[in-house]
Amino acid sequence: MSGIDACVVFSGGLDSSVCLASAVQEYGSTGTLAVTFLYGQKHSREVDYARTQVDHYGIGHKVIDLTAVGWGSSSLTSAHPIPAGDVDRSGIPSTYVPGRNLIFLSIATSIAESHGAKAVITGVNAVDYSGYPDCRPEFIAALQKTVDLGTEVGVSGRGVEIKAPLIGMDKAQIVSLGNELEVPFKDTWSCYAGNDVPCGVCDSCLLRQAGFRGAGIEDPV
Amino acid sequence: MSGIDACVVFSGGLDSSVCLASAVQEYGSTGTLAVTFLYGQKHSREVDYARTQVDHYGIGHKVIDLTAVGWGSSSLTSAHPIPAGDVDRSGIPSTYVPGRNLIFLSIATSIAESHGAKAVITGVNAVDYSGYPDCRPEFIAALQKTVDLGTEVGVSGRGVEIKAPLIGMDKAQIVSLGNELEVPFKDTWSCYAGNDVPCGVCDSCLLRQAGFRGAGIEDPV
Repeated sequence: MSGIDACVVFSGGLDSSVCLASAVQEYGSTGTLAVTFLYGQKHSREVDYARTQVDHYGIGHKVIDLTAVGWGSSSLTSAHPIPAGDVDRSGIPSTYVPGRNLIFLSIATSIAESHGAKAVITGVNAVDYSGYPDCRPEFIAALQKTVDLGTEVGVSGRGVEIKAPLIGMDKAQIVSLGNELEVPFKDTWSCYAGNDVPCGVCDSCLLRQAGFRGAGIEDPV
Repeated sequence: MSGIDACVVFSGGLDSSVCLASAVQEYGSTGTLAVTFLYGQKHSREVDYARTQVDHYGIGHKVIDLTAVGWGSSSLTSAHPIPAGDVDRSGIPSTYVPGRNLIFLSIATSIAESHGAKAVITGVNAVDYSGYPDCRPEFIAALQKTVDLGTEVGVSGRGVEIKAPLIGMDKAQIVSLGNELEVPFKDTWSCYAGNDVPCGVCDSCLLRQAGFRGAGIEDPV
């Protein structure tokens, strides 16, 4: 696993699946590495969906288990129930996971640096999203500066760029892009609840439904 | 493990041991949590030394295994030999580990946020050090800004502060401070090589020797 071009933070969800398809198109299957994290999420079945897509593209894959970190009392990682219908609520929802994207992107950057990749790609989105602070452009910009200062590739000027291609798109645009890129939507998983079928009422389900509806595309999941 | 005050990134080496002793003095044994990382380092024996000190203080301890990240071709984590006598060389040495402090501090910040701690403490030092970019004040400042923007506690203004109390001290000052704080120096490990006794010629051994010599204190290791 050397000489890759891009490291994609890939959960198996809708947004990161679109990012992965785009990366494979741009960098090829040998140039793209997917990184997936276990962190005690109730919907760890997303990792199975991630594996199915990785097999589909024939790309490299790292699955990194971070459950030992603990991750606090987020409703995504603890006995607290996943809230229903939260999309329009202001403030940060109970599904917020402390430091999640900071940690995931830090690790992806390290992997990129180790393998000579110039890009780390994340599916964070700040339009149709749950209000997480670590999905906003200002967070990504600050992390880029931190990486530039704290890594050998940053100091040397060769650099690793953190790309968030979906950050300004609404969910319908993301679904449409995924459709163009032939994302295997049936192999993506969005629901936060830990059940066999999507709950249909959590933030993530509602955003997904609205996205497919807005794009005029039927969701096979 | 709730209601802690500080989370200390603790390798079992000299600098982080001084930080830990200082934290225990300031926050007490119940207020202090140590976090230690396995990342494929040749000198993983440092983790045994860390455990001995944790037992000494009777504090909480998380040991998090990150070897799955891979960590590239650093001489600290691969078959490449540890260089001897590198202290005065300019540039970044082969012992540089991609993204190490970014990842360690990101995880420590997440743990701090989860447990309501106000401080993350790191023993990074930019005076008598190996030239790693992720030990410099500008890196810590950029990471602080990233944490402020990317976490719930940052956005709410409650905040987690990343403290690097040794960053401007030379090694003799660090040893002297450790002596005042009654750090159990015999239970600290610095050597980068993976042997049973310190090699005496790697960066870390040379810096340690110079520190004890400068402080006029005998090193029990």
